[in-house]
Amino acid sequence: MTTYEDAGVSLARGDAASEDALRQMKATFKEYVVLDLGLPVVDLFAAIPKHWRRPMLRHAVDGVGTKLIYAANCRLVNTVGEDLVAMCTDDLARYNIRPLAFSAYRGANFIDERTLSLVVWGIVSGCKKAEIPYTAGETAEMPGFYVGSHFELVGFCDGIYEHGTLRYGQDTKAGDILIALPSLGPGSNGFSLIRSVFPPEEVVAGKSPVTCEEVLRPTSIYTRQVLKANERYKTIRGWAHITGGGLGEKGKLAKLLPRGLCASLDRESWKVPSIFLKVQQVGNISDEVMFSTFNMGLMMIAPVQNRQANNVVQFFESLGIPAAIVGRVEKQQGLSKVLIV
Amino acid sequence: MTTYEDAGVSLARGDAASEDALRQMKATFKEYVVLDLGLPVVDLFAAIPKHWRRPMLRHAVDGVGTKLIYAANCRLVNTVGEDLVAMCTDDLARYNIRPLAFSAYRGANFIDERTLSLVVWGIVSGCKKAEIPYTAGETAEMPGFYVGSHFELVGFCDGIYEHGTLRYGQDTKAGDILIALPSLGPGSNGFSLIRSVFPPEEVVAGKSPVTCEEVLRPTSIYTRQVLKANERYKTIRGWAHITGGGLGEKGKLAKLLPRGLCASLDRESWKVPSIFLKVQQVGNISDEVMFSTFNMGLMMIAPVQNRQANNVVQFFESLGIPAAIVGRVEKQQGLSKVLIV
Repeated sequence: MTTYEDAGVSLARGDAASEDALRQMKATFKEYVVLDLGLPVVDLFAAIPKHWRRPMLRHAVDGVGTKLIYAANCRLVNTVGEDLVAMCTDDLARYNIRPLAFSAYRGANFIDERTLSLVVWGIVSGCKKAEIPYTAGETAEMPGFYVGSHFELVGFCDGIYEHGTLRYGQDTKAGDILIALPSLGPGSNGFSLIRSVFPPEEVVAGKSPVTCEEVLRPTSIYTRQVLKANERYKTIRGWAHITGGGLGEKGKLAKLLPRGLCASLDRESWKVPSIFLKVQQVGNISDEVMFSTFNMGLMMIAPVQNRQANNVVQFFESLGIPAAIVGRVEKQQGLSKVLIV
Repeated sequence: MTTYEDAGVSLARGDAASEDALRQMKATFKEYVVLDLGLPVVDLFAAIPKHWRRPMLRHAVDGVGTKLIYAANCRLVNTVGEDLVAMCTDDLARYNIRPLAFSAYRGANFIDERTLSLVVWGIVSGCKKAEIPYTAGETAEMPGFYVGSHFELVGFCDGIYEHGTLRYGQDTKAGDILIALPSLGPGSNGFSLIRSVFPPEEVVAGKSPVTCEEVLRPTSIYTRQVLKANERYKTIRGWAHITGGGLGEKGKLAKLLPRGLCASLDRESWKVPSIFLKVQQVGNISDEVMFSTFNMGLMMIAPVQNRQANNVVQFFESLGIPAAIVGRVEKQQGLSKVLIV
C-alpha cells in the first residue's frame, strides 16, 4: 500500500511548521492586528490614520532570487527572511506607500522543521525592522520540485497610501541633488552573476575569496526611515530601490526621472563595498555590467530639491544611517538616463 | 568578459514578460481598480460597501503544489493559473471573506515568454471566474534553482469582510445538513501521491491510464457563488475548502465542527470522479489514505441548518452548479471528526 508519507509529503510536518510560524509571527503584530476567531486580521479602521481622505492599496510581491542557492548550500538560512521583507516593503516605501501587512510562501522538497523555523525567524526579524505585521503564510512540501536542498521564498505585502501622496519621481527637476542610503552588499540582486564567479560549492568549502556570511549579508531595510523622511521633507521626489537592473538604464533610478532628465552619479562620492570589487576582479567583468546589475553600495536613492538636501542627509544621520550626496539631476544630453562620472 | 546574460538572466526577457502580464491583467480590473501614476491600485473607499461598519483584511497565500510538475512536463501550462486563483480566493470565501485583489509570483530557471504568457492567461481566466482584479506580479528568472523545466507559481490575495460576519463553523450544530459543491478532479492537492502512481514521463508518453488533460483539469472556482449564497442564507455555517488533508481528520471539514460534533458523509450520495478510482486501483491505496489526501469529488462543503438545506441546493442549481446533500452533522461518538459511511 502506498501512503502519502511514502510519496514524500507529511501533513504532520506541515502542521508543526505552521504552528511554529504563527508563534513567531505574533512578535510582529501591531495594535491594529487582531485575532478574529483565531485568524490574524488587519482592522482597517484602526490602521488608517483619521485624517486620511482616500486610502488606496497597492500590492508588492517579490522573492530573494538565487541568493537562496547560497543560503541552502551554506546552510545559513536565518538571513534570507530579511532580504524577502526588504524586497517587498522598501518597494512600497520607495513611492511613499506605507506597508500594511506581510505574507510569505515557503516551498521545499522536504519540510525540515528546524530550517524553516530559522527562515521564519529571519522574516520576523525583517518585519520588526520594517515595523510591519506578518499575518499569513503557507508552507508547501513539493518533493522533486527544486534542485537539491533549494527552498523557495516569496513575499507579499499590501501597502496603503492617501490618494495624491504617491511620490513616483513626477516632480523631479534638473538641479535636484541625489541622496543615497548605503548598501553593505548586493542585497538580493545579481546573484546569478555572483554564482558564476564564486560557485557556491567553493564558497561553502572555504576555497573562495568570499565567505558565506559575506554573500548572505541581508539587504538593508529602510522602510520606516524613508517614510519618516518623506513626511518631514516634501521635496523628496520618491526613492529608487536599487534592485534588478542596478544603477543601469533599466534600473529603478532611471524610472524616477521624467523625460528629458538624467541622473549624474559621482563615483568618487561613495565607497563601493569590497564584495563588488572581488566579483568584478575575479570575474573580469566590465564596469557597465557591474553598474547595470548591482547596487554597488547604494540601496536607495532619492532626488531632493537642492535647498533641502543637506537637511535630509542630517536627518538620516540622526537616525544612525550614513546617508550621502552622490550626484545630481541634470538635463539629459545623450541617450543615457544614468551617467556614472 | 562575463555578462549577466552569460549567467543566464535576461532583463529584456523579464521586462517583456512584465509588459505582457500587465496587458493581460487589465482584463480583470473592476471599477474600484484605478491607475495611479501608472500603478494599478485599489481605491478602498470605492471597494468597501457603504453600509459596512468595520472592514477587516485577511490575507491568503498559496501555491499549486507539484501539479506544476505535470504542467511543466506536459507543456500544458494554461490551466494552473486557475488552480492558483482557486486556492487563494476560495480559501478566503470559505469563511465569508470577499477577495479584494490578487497578486502572483512566477519563477523559472529561464523566462520563456510564451510559456509565461500562457500561465498569465490562466491566472487571468481564474480571476475572471472569481471576479477579482489581478493587480501585481513578479517574474523571477532563477537559473539552476528548479529541476528541469519546473516553474513556480505563488498566489496572494487580500480579502475584506465586515467585522462580525466571519463564518468559521462556530455556529455549526448537530442536525445540520452537509451540502457539497462538486470537484471534477483532485484540484491542486495530493499530486505527490498521484505522481508516485502515474509518473509524469509515462503520462506525457501516453503510456498511462490518465492523460495530461485529465490530471491538469483546473480546480473549480466557487468564490462568487459561495459569497452570494452566504448573503442569502444566514444558516450556512461556513465552507470547508477541501484541499490539503482531503476529507480526513486534518482536513478543512473537521475544522468547521466545534468540539463534540462530527461530520457523517454518505459515500453513496455523490459520484467519485474516475481519476480517483484509477489512482486508488493502480496505486493499491487504502480508502483511508484516499479520503485523507483527496477531495474525492467534493470541492467545498458547508453545514447548513436542516430547514434551509434544500433551498441552498436549489440556489446553486439555479446558478448551474450541481450542489448535493452529502451527509449531516452529528454528536461525536468516537475519536473521529469525519465519518465516511
